[in-house]
Amino acid sequence: MSQSVIEQFKSLLKEQTSYSEAIALMGWDMRTKAPKKGVEHRSEVLGVLSQKVHEIQTSDEMKDCIDQLKGKVDDPIIQKAVEEAEETYEKTAKIPTDEYREYVTLQSRAESMWEEAKTNNDFKSFQPYLEKLVEYNRKFADYWGYENHRYDALLHNFEPGVTVEVLDEVFPKVREALTGLLEKINHAPNQPDPTVLEGHFPKDEQAKFSEEILKRMGYDFDAGRLDETVHPFAIGLNTNDVRVTTKYDEQDFRTAIFGTIHEGGHALYEQNIDEELAFTSLSGGTSMGIHESQSLFWENFISRTEAFWETHYDLFKQYAPPKFESLPLDQFYRAINEVKPSFIRIEADELTYCLHIMVRYELEKALIGGEIEVADLPKLWNEKMKDYLGIEPNTDAEGVLQDIHWSGGAFGYFPSYALGYMYAAQFATRMNEDLDVEACIQKGDFGPIKSWLTEHIHQYGKMKKPLEILNDVTGEGLNADHIVNYLTDKYQKIYQF
Amino acid sequence: MSQSVIEQFKSLLKEQTSYSEAIALMGWDMRTKAPKKGVEHRSEVLGVLSQKVHEIQTSDEMKDCIDQLKGKVDDPIIQKAVEEAEETYEKTAKIPTDEYREYVTLQSRAESMWEEAKTNNDFKSFQPYLEKLVEYNRKFADYWGYENHRYDALLHNFEPGVTVEVLDEVFPKVREALTGLLEKINHAPNQPDPTVLEGHFPKDEQAKFSEEILKRMGYDFDAGRLDETVHPFAIGLNTNDVRVTTKYDEQDFRTAIFGTIHEGGHALYEQNIDEELAFTSLSGGTSMGIHESQSLFWENFISRTEAFWETHYDLFKQYAPPKFESLPLDQFYRAINEVKPSFIRIEADELTYCLHIMVRYELEKALIGGEIEVADLPKLWNEKMKDYLGIEPNTDAEGVLQDIHWSGGAFGYFPSYALGYMYAAQFATRMNEDLDVEACIQKGDFGPIKSWLTEHIHQYGKMKKPLEILNDVTGEGLNADHIVNYLTDKYQKIYQF
Repeated sequence: MSQSVIEQFKSLLKEQTSYSEAIALMGWDMRTKAPKKGVEHRSEVLGVLSQKVHEIQTSDEMKDCIDQLKGKVDDPIIQKAVEEAEETYEKTAKIPTDEYREYVTLQSRAESMWEEAKTNNDFKSFQPYLEKLVEYNRKFADYWGYENHRYDALLHNFEPGVTVEVLDEVFPKVREALTGLLEKINHAPNQPDPTVLEGHFPKDEQAKFSEEILKRMGYDFDAGRLDETVHPFAIGLNTNDVRVTTKYDEQDFRTAIFGTIHEGGHALYEQNIDEELAFTSLSGGTSMGIHESQSLFWENFISRTEAFWETHYDLFKQYAPPKFESLPLDQFYRAINEVKPSFIRIEADELTYCLHIMVRYELEKALIGGEIEVADLPKLWNEKMKDYLGIEPNTDAEGVLQDIHWSGGAFGYFPSYALGYMYAAQFATRMNEDLDVEACIQKGDFGPIKSWLTEHIHQYGKMKKPLEILNDVTGEGLNADHIVNYLTDKYQKIYQF
Repeated sequence: MSQSVIEQFKSLLKEQTSYSEAIALMGWDMRTKAPKKGVEHRSEVLGVLSQKVHEIQTSDEMKDCIDQLKGKVDDPIIQKAVEEAEETYEKTAKIPTDEYREYVTLQSRAESMWEEAKTNNDFKSFQPYLEKLVEYNRKFADYWGYENHRYDALLHNFEPGVTVEVLDEVFPKVREALTGLLEKINHAPNQPDPTVLEGHFPKDEQAKFSEEILKRMGYDFDAGRLDETVHPFAIGLNTNDVRVTTKYDEQDFRTAIFGTIHEGGHALYEQNIDEELAFTSLSGGTSMGIHESQSLFWENFISRTEAFWETHYDLFKQYAPPKFESLPLDQFYRAINEVKPSFIRIEADELTYCLHIMVRYELEKALIGGEIEVADLPKLWNEKMKDYLGIEPNTDAEGVLQDIHWSGGAFGYFPSYALGYMYAAQFATRMNEDLDVEACIQKGDFGPIKSWLTEHIHQYGKMKKPLEILNDVTGEGLNADHIVNYLTDKYQKIYQF
């Protein structure tokens, strides 16, 4: 194989990743800066650029490069990029073009139908669209193939290597432990009082505190920025331009402060990927679950700890309303860690969050497996909520219709959220063997923590698959014990049961 | 010719204009929001997308479309787009690929050499680069062809239809009138006192006033936004997303306020182009000169008038520092219209600005024509400054090295600035026949003015060439009388000579 094929392959990747950077910037802009009337035209432009990415990924030229380079290049980056390109090529090639086109049209129609259905609390109007989406996903899973469970083929898109067999071993352990903990928490006599956190906290002051924390975490503002948006996210345009967004609630500072730290965790990941991977399509987080492990690590294992607030409560009070001057640290700490079952996943606390995921995982696995049908969803959803969280939604809008994911055909995605919690707990256990994490937090010295994460996780980008990282770092596969022990230990102390 | 060729042509244009929108957004972002470390990677991405635009414009596919569609389509928009595409294709095809590639490399090296030379006040270090740039431009002009003067071929790139013959008739008239006026102004006993404008004017208050004026002008903030930058500009991503940028000087409000109105004039043009032209490459200003006529019209013919301040001085005082409460309108108006020869073009007042352009026009015309050489420039520059403005730069940094244009090879561009003044004056004369412009300004009712500009100029985008618009609107070609009469009249009153 000649050098020129490698050059041709690199040039295809450079073109593809350049379009992706433009697409990412347009996405960031639409969600933070763009004037509303420009959105329609912009969507068309996004369509054109996305189509170009798709064309490159599935081009004959790309196929030639893959065939000529696969297994024949010394450079490990090129080799990995070839594997990545092949996976994308194969995945797309297996779906008949007509069906894919119909599916893309269905997705965008279903999304707007879902929005309407949610507003009107009318599951029936969305049901036929959801049925078609499920049907397509069943078909696609069959095209892609799987060993044991049809749902595995979809899981693979988001968390390669993770299967129903794996999840069905670990998730029930997590679920049972959490429902047990929740039971104890609900009956604990000493409940935290979240009303102590209420009060007007001006946006600008929240922003200043958040920025200060981002800086201390090691987020590089010369390679990023912080903006306001409606649904917060972090986005990497390239490793030297990774942007964080947040939302301010002047009545509840937790939204912005924990939200910014969460997104900051995502951003640290993207800022610290090896620059050698630039323009290769490997320069991004390796999976949704590993990405979430980074945001959750900073949010929960750092910023919701007692050690963190021992060091940062004084700083917080410099920006916070005067009432916090008289609020003891202990009451503050317990209040920000209140556990309370609620209907909406994205508003859930650290402990009940995974239970929301269990509801969705079990339902979508059964849907794709053909064990249940779409029409049964509202009833099953409410039953599972009652079983796991002890509460039952009053409407489908705050039940089965709450999330956008299924309306976009994203089946197999939800488990990644819970996997993020599990990975984070496993990384935390391992990190504690290398570092005195609590001492670092207490000193406000996050340098060693950030370096540990970069060394073990961030730098690799997509050079390693999620379970490969997990094994390399922790020496084991998915293990529910870590998250269970962590949550048990933490909430026993807070709720004193 | 079949419908499918039209579809193919439209699809090429849609791809090309989509890349252009992405490029425009990346440009805006780099100049307003992007973190500094991301710039290097971003520049590469910009390179890839610009290359794609170039590839489409010069592709065999595009040539086929042009050949099949030219003169054979009923739709006037398609027909015009074909002509536009052909011009671009021909222009590029005439330059040997190797030479073009060398030239692009030279441009970027020359720009950084120019920056260094300007900082070090060292023309000699820049001279060899400028010599090569001139040499390439002479060659390109020969490739493109011209009737009378080689410089015409370059003028055509920026202001099609305008030739040395035309400019040599009108520019000397303008120059002589202005130097005459300047002589009288310099000797007028009653000089305005610009120090009355000094004083700390907080940025936020300047911004609020500027926004209010933009709104009154009819700038649509739902299809645009206002941001801060170092070198202000307006940029149209599409007609529903046209952004204005400005710079705040807290010691001199004139920078931001007149600057914002100027850029607002550019933005109104782009916001009011017929939406039918979207995705066709005709959806933009027709020439640099016509664009400048729009910004200058709003800046000078509206916002520097006595009528404007009669209506808006009270509003201004709501945001301005308290000292303005006691500053009479008359003194304020005369101060903002002070005429004072200075070295730097971009800081020049309304009257001396065109004289700066004359210096550049005469020099670059002679350079391209081979009548003078690069080595002579510093000396000739200073002589012309002395002749026309009565002042001589102390250094080349504030003389021949001040502008970036030549370092990027932009010869033939400078005249458009002066043409913008002339067009604006001609449009103003005509508008005054249709509307009582002064009465509109006095009422603060800019609606009829904006509608007139949209009807006669904005809506057409690139459907009409600059001189075509001028003729259609005013019934005549370039005519120096209008700008001369306007300036004479205005400054006679202000300086009472």
